[in-house]
Amino acid sequence: MHNKFPSQLVEQAVEQFSNLPGIGRKTALRLTLHLLSKDPSYTHKITDALNRLRDEIVYCKCCHNVSDTEICSICSDPHRDKQTICVVQNVNDVIAIENTAQYKGVYHVLGGVISPIDGIGPSQLNIDELVNRIESERIKEVILALGSTMEGDTTNFFLYRKLSVFGIKISVIARGIAVGDELEYADEVTLGRSILNRTSFDDAIKR
Amino acid sequence: MHNKFPSQLVEQAVEQFSNLPGIGRKTALRLTLHLLSKDPSYTHKITDALNRLRDEIVYCKCCHNVSDTEICSICSDPHRDKQTICVVQNVNDVIAIENTAQYKGVYHVLGGVISPIDGIGPSQLNIDELVNRIESERIKEVILALGSTMEGDTTNFFLYRKLSVFGIKISVIARGIAVGDELEYADEVTLGRSILNRTSFDDAIKR
Repeated sequence: MHNKFPSQLVEQAVEQFSNLPGIGRKTALRLTLHLLSKDPSYTHKITDALNRLRDEIVYCKCCHNVSDTEICSICSDPHRDKQTICVVQNVNDVIAIENTAQYKGVYHVLGGVISPIDGIGPSQLNIDELVNRIESERIKEVILALGSTMEGDTTNFFLYRKLSVFGIKISVIARGIAVGDELEYADEVTLGRSILNRTSFDDAIKR
Repeated sequence: MHNKFPSQLVEQAVEQFSNLPGIGRKTALRLTLHLLSKDPSYTHKITDALNRLRDEIVYCKCCHNVSDTEICSICSDPHRDKQTICVVQNVNDVIAIENTAQYKGVYHVLGGVISPIDGIGPSQLNIDELVNRIESERIKEVILALGSTMEGDTTNFFLYRKLSVFGIKISVIARGIAVGDELEYADEVTLGRSILNRTSFDDAIKR
């Protein structure tokens, strides 16, 4: 779709909206006209929130999660188990795991996974910082909670090799049939792993 | 979904994104984290474009279309037929009709339709301005191109009553079967109108 716009300002706003992921030019135009239909203060509230987000955001010095303070609310929570570190790819994974309300340890945000195709090697991720934490704090367990992709598996293996020298427990989140899913629609690898990694029914019904 | 966010700044950005039409909290979070994954300049480019849109937009003094100048590019185009005015509800309708490349007249943006339920009466629309244009310019035809809703029909009828005293041609855009549609899926009113308002086949094949 190549629209002729009645105004350069409209065209530039549409351009910027449609740069965002998942927003096409049609939606961008709808959002732009929506802003025009409202008071200027409505637009200013949005742009202020976005500018402040980007300019004032801090990354936790300990776990590299987004934060308002130098040490994030999870790392500074006295009720969290500081000896268990859950390693995740991104901030959204922290939010996703926090929403389960099942995990009481702390996190370490890698900032990505090893991906030679995208030119991302171990040095661009927060891996040295993770090693430092394990060296300086008394960590008992590291949980690898990366995505089940080739890059995630590569990163898991890299971390396993790097961390196994410390003699701590290294675990990986369970792969298996998603809750609510039928067996017949699962792929063989997932189904195979879910049989190999079966858990005691006693344990399962307690959850 | 009620997320606990690791940062107030993230929460406020998600809040503002999800105020936009068609954007839920999940998409809002994805957009927010997308901004964080990019340079600050990326966010600033977006917010600058939106602020400038809202602060600097001008409405054409003649047709009330959005514009960068006092008189919009359509009204000031010497190749457009200034004696034919197409009356539309909103700016998006101007863009939609311009994209057809079928119309060479000018526009008049009402800014809405008469809707007693929403408390919108004729005085809140640019109707007096339309009457002024017809009185002061030499208009030959007014095309009513409002949506085919109850409010659109009400507004059409109101305008017809108001404008018929000027002795100009008043037409309304054709209602009928959409191009590419099957007859069996059309509602009876549309199908009925498309039979009553049939056009000469000679005319139809020329288009």
